[in-house]
Amino acid sequence: MTATVSVTTRSRTQMQDITGPVQQAVSETGVGDGLCVVYVPHTTSGITINEGADPAVCTDIIAKLNQLVPANDGYGHMEGNADSHIKSSLMGSSVTILVENGRLVLGTWQKVFFCEFDGPRSRKVYVKVVAERG
Amino acid sequence: MTATVSVTTRSRTQMQDITGPVQQAVSETGVGDGLCVVYVPHTTSGITINEGADPAVCTDIIAKLNQLVPANDGYGHMEGNADSHIKSSLMGSSVTILVENGRLVLGTWQKVFFCEFDGPRSRKVYVKVVAERG
Amino acid sequence: MTATVSVTTRSRTQMQDITGPVQQAVSETGVGDGLCVVYVPHTTSGITINEGADPAVCTDIIAKLNQLVPANDGYGHMEGNADSHIKSSLMGSSVTILVENGRLVLGTWQKVFFCEFDGPRSRKVYVKVVAERG
Repeated sequence: MTATVSVTTRSRTQMQDITGPVQQAVSETGVGDGLCVVYVPHTTSGITINEGADPAVCTDIIAKLNQLVPANDGYGHMEGNADSHIKSSLMGSSVTILVENGRLVLGTWQKVFFCEFDGPRSRKVYVKVVAERG
Repeated sequence: MTATVSVTTRSRTQMQDITGPVQQAVSETGVGDGLCVVYVPHTTSGITINEGADPAVCTDIIAKLNQLVPANDGYGHMEGNADSHIKSSLMGSSVTILVENGRLVLGTWQKVFFCEFDGPRSRKVYVKVVAERG
Repeated sequence: MTATVSVTTRSRTQMQDITGPVQQAVSETGVGDGLCVVYVPHTTSGITINEGADPAVCTDIIAKLNQLVPANDGYGHMEGNADSHIKSSLMGSSVTILVENGRLVLGTWQKVFFCEFDGPRSRKVYVKVVAERG
């Protein structure tokens, strides 16, 4: 009852629209109404919901995060990805989306974005749907 | 089984306490124990839980977000609300609250706040309650 | 069906690994598959999921939050913890984790951290598990 969505990223920091595969996973559960949780099991990536129409929105989000949390800033964690961990906690490890009639209930402009902060890498995302009433 | 709460904001950036209408929506579902998800279908607003007793707390949150993510900062998104999108992802698109005996389980000082980042506007928030055991 | 985990913090800002007690609470519910919500009922603390192997990761997160949101910064809230409230909203008041076969589904490096922003204090965290299908 938990689906896994694979994500392949191409840059160190990148937001990738995964709305399609998440909807696919929801459809396969057969659940009509409930909650969908999209969960990232990594500590140097995150997940968020934002506008998908203009790619500049994602570019702006990434640029601002890079400005507030630069890759090099005297961190104690010596693996070169301390900033990635911090960005991960700022965006969060999961999003929760309502499901009705088997469809994600997203706003007109909303898409689900996997946020890569230490790529490029092969990543995965878990999708689980819990029915509203058993 | 999903309720819609309407929110009318009066400023470009503003936090509005919606705890009352959210509790009302929860009560109307008749669910005793479970989870309540409050979801914002917009990409230039967010939602958070914080202190409701002193209005200065919300003023401070908004001021800090405006300082870290100014309205004008050389963004690529040209609609004048790039900062609103970034703030939306920093606050998040939903909060999840426990429900017991039909009541939101909030801490003493906690209130649920709709966060407007590109107002004034007419907005809506979805409220769904999933029962603990069907 | 809601467990309470007690947390005692020793510093003003501190991240404390509570993965063990959260798993214990999940085990005691007897739920095999579903969602676990870990909820903080305080407005000057938060919760996040991040790396637990190198303590420097948490130190870096705390240091960056303290840099972006200093303890003193001309805030309007006069209780000396305006920054704590802001940090609370940046980290968030809950995390949601998948549960399978009675176990939290965490990534290899993931741990659940209570984030103290106005300690030292005695705190509590609520843990609720909702079954996937009643």
